[in-house]
Amino acid sequence: MSKLKITETALRDGHQSLIATRLKTEEILPILEKMDEAGYHSLEVWGGATFDACIRFLNEDPWARLREIRKRVRNTKLQMLLRGQNLLGYRHYGDDVVEKFVEKSIENGIDIIRIFDALNDYRNIKTSVEATRKYGGHAQICIAYTTSEVHTVDYYVEKVREIDAMGADSICIKDMAGILMPNVAYELIKRMKEVTELPIELHTHCTSGIADMLYMKAVEAGVDIIDTGISPFSGGTAQPATEVFAETFRGHERDPELDMDILAEIADYFKPIKEKYRAEGILNPKVMDTEPKTLKYQVPGGMLSNLLSQLEGQGAADKYEDVLNEIPRVRKDLGYPPLVTPLSQMVGTQSVFNVLTGGRYKVVPKEIKDYVMGMYGQSPAPVDEEIKKIIIGDETPITHRPADDIEPEFDRLAAEIGDLAKSEEDVLMYALFPENAKKFLENRGKPQVEEVEEYHINLVI
Amino acid sequence: MSKLKITETALRDGHQSLIATRLKTEEILPILEKMDEAGYHSLEVWGGATFDACIRFLNEDPWARLREIRKRVRNTKLQMLLRGQNLLGYRHYGDDVVEKFVEKSIENGIDIIRIFDALNDYRNIKTSVEATRKYGGHAQICIAYTTSEVHTVDYYVEKVREIDAMGADSICIKDMAGILMPNVAYELIKRMKEVTELPIELHTHCTSGIADMLYMKAVEAGVDIIDTGISPFSGGTAQPATEVFAETFRGHERDPELDMDILAEIADYFKPIKEKYRAEGILNPKVMDTEPKTLKYQVPGGMLSNLLSQLEGQGAADKYEDVLNEIPRVRKDLGYPPLVTPLSQMVGTQSVFNVLTGGRYKVVPKEIKDYVMGMYGQSPAPVDEEIKKIIIGDETPITHRPADDIEPEFDRLAAEIGDLAKSEEDVLMYALFPENAKKFLENRGKPQVEEVEEYHINLVI
Ligand SMILES: [Co+2]
Ligand SMILES: [Co+2]
Repeated sequence: MSKLKITETALRDGHQSLIATRLKTEEILPILEKMDEAGYHSLEVWGGATFDACIRFLNEDPWARLREIRKRVRNTKLQMLLRGQNLLGYRHYGDDVVEKFVEKSIENGIDIIRIFDALNDYRNIKTSVEATRKYGGHAQICIAYTTSEVHTVDYYVEKVREIDAMGADSICIKDMAGILMPNVAYELIKRMKEVTELPIELHTHCTSGIADMLYMKAVEAGVDIIDTGISPFSGGTAQPATEVFAETFRGHERDPELDMDILAEIADYFKPIKEKYRAEGILNPKVMDTEPKTLKYQVPGGMLSNLLSQLEGQGAADKYEDVLNEIPRVRKDLGYPPLVTPLSQMVGTQSVFNVLTGGRYKVVPKEIKDYVMGMYGQSPAPVDEEIKKIIIGDETPITHRPADDIEPEFDRLAAEIGDLAKSEEDVLMYALFPENAKKFLENRGKPQVEEVEEYHINLVI
Repeated sequence: MSKLKITETALRDGHQSLIATRLKTEEILPILEKMDEAGYHSLEVWGGATFDACIRFLNEDPWARLREIRKRVRNTKLQMLLRGQNLLGYRHYGDDVVEKFVEKSIENGIDIIRIFDALNDYRNIKTSVEATRKYGGHAQICIAYTTSEVHTVDYYVEKVREIDAMGADSICIKDMAGILMPNVAYELIKRMKEVTELPIELHTHCTSGIADMLYMKAVEAGVDIIDTGISPFSGGTAQPATEVFAETFRGHERDPELDMDILAEIADYFKPIKEKYRAEGILNPKVMDTEPKTLKYQVPGGMLSNLLSQLEGQGAADKYEDVLNEIPRVRKDLGYPPLVTPLSQMVGTQSVFNVLTGGRYKVVPKEIKDYVMGMYGQSPAPVDEEIKKIIIGDETPITHRPADDIEPEFDRLAAEIGDLAKSEEDVLMYALFPENAKKFLENRGKPQVEEVEEYHINLVI
């Protein structure tokens, strides 16, 4: 078997998961030449929540960050995460915006675009996959992993065939909730390898405590690439530690051949940065805790804690177990949507409503109506007919690709933002996050208003 | 293969590793009946640092804690950790004290005594093993795991034969530093199984990030028992999470058959307790971090951070790498002692001296002299002849069992403490921790002096 490849996640998912995506470009740049020498397959550095966080919290141009990173990383591939037709934003965008965004991502330095759709409805990623290939990028298509009656190994193998047919360059099993069990992964990867030549990458989170064992069995099954984070940005809600896998497989046939001395230097670089965010309270110590209830309820850790605080806010904490038992029923009603943003929030809210309002589907949020109307794409299994009737009455759901209903919109958006945009990248920023991008572009170049410093005085009497 | 057994460590190693052994008896008792129903093989509840912590920090009688635990745990075995001739204290004790301590531990409720010697010199555990058997306990003998030229799989297999010959009831591979690599464990356990019928238990710590994979490969190799902690007292410097292994092997041939609902209840019980200790600062968030440097340098994580702060204290932090490189040389000179308390501190200090004093072994602490004199037992390999000459000159090391030089001392200690001791248990408390036991016994029954409450005022100006 070939050498195991490693995607380093510290610069995207690592800090997104542990410190709310707050890593600054000035904290990233000084270590990049070193990271470029470590022997990584790729560095995940962009996409996901980083774009939004740059504009919203850091007063940084995300495009400029990408260009600065690319300047310093000459040998290692740069990778990003893209939510298909949603790009990095919160709605479906027009195909012209999607294509332009992909073009500009590649032009500014990205090599590999990891593309996923929450429902695994690949019509929602078609445009971004095609654009990636058109502009010379590597298109990695995700299987968003979940468990249900219909989400069998056979189901996923069928998805692999779809991915192959779309012309992907590689496949990612995206276990965003950390619920893929090691033995299931072993079988899944073995089966996938029987039907595809494409490299298979595995992505998980440590939240439930299963991640290291998952990677071990995946490597034994022949997975090509795993996602890990350098130790200070590993564990907890983030990925397993890079050094651990470099050491575990050192000298074995799958040896990833990472440079242990360089990994130690990278870890030493990030340690004080992590300590700073810990001291500032941005690294909440709870994110490092193991939450195996995720395995028991098949519900992501973050969703569990959100539900509990939602219920507590309404003085209904005693209904927690009822809601946890309602979730699988709602999932079944809705055709087993994977519990990933935004579907996890939608299913969670509907479950709370079903328990608290004294009747199932007496109250239905607009998002669930849109979902049943097919506006998010096709559900993994059909929505239950009776429930559908309750939710949308006699209306007929759409069966075409949701983005087919969206007119081209780049030119309109460019006109809207006008002179504030100095480049197509600026227009795209505005397309994704209209309010915050506008604020960012208006203030660009102006001297930063100094925040008034707060003096904390800790008196012990 | 038989069902995998689980030793739950939360009530000893879990809180010892994460919150400095501060769990109070009143926090332990309410959940014990529940823990008794979970399906554990054993609960580790006593020994290690818990005895000392009860007297020193909690104003609790450790013997009373044990009796209260035993009352509530009717079906599950109770387990403790004992440092051979050191018992739970800091010196070698007379054989009569050792025997009495073991007798009273079993009489007060212990079923399984895990016994270890830092050097794996089993003459140092002979008395405690024999006493355990004499008083009807289960004697588990440890292999303290370390790496070196002499610590080969063959070396450990030879240790297994010794353990077998001593009449042990089971064997524990004690990987206190978290450096046992998964593939090494696989081979080691397979080889051990060829030469012994005794059940094999594996104990590790998550510090280096390797623990879950270690357990997975150990289970595949046929290990009988693994040590895990319920999730709130798992991970970091403690053991892997119990629930994770219960879920991972559910439905497999090695299914530990733990009750997942009960495990969830136990976790829910301990969560707010953990939060309390976190809020009080007793749970240092850093203990949850992964420190893979342990794997690179084969030096326990705690020792790494101690060394660094020791050097920083002397303005010599720039010598850190030199000291890390000196440690393996010192270990070689001294016949490869395992880096476990107190040997880790001794080797660390000697390495610092060798680097900072401008000459190797120019300064030698008394403990190292004693070690070379054979006062700690036999080193795994002989001490280097030249180094020996430098350290002890023409003196001749002892070759007999160190405790052979200790007279019986129980009666003398009983006379010393006099009427303050109301039982043999009290005398043993005094034997182990003379100063703190005396204070504890003097204040027993007196009303507790209320600590003056501190008012913390946090002003933000
Ligand atoms: Co992720
Ligand atoms: Co331990």
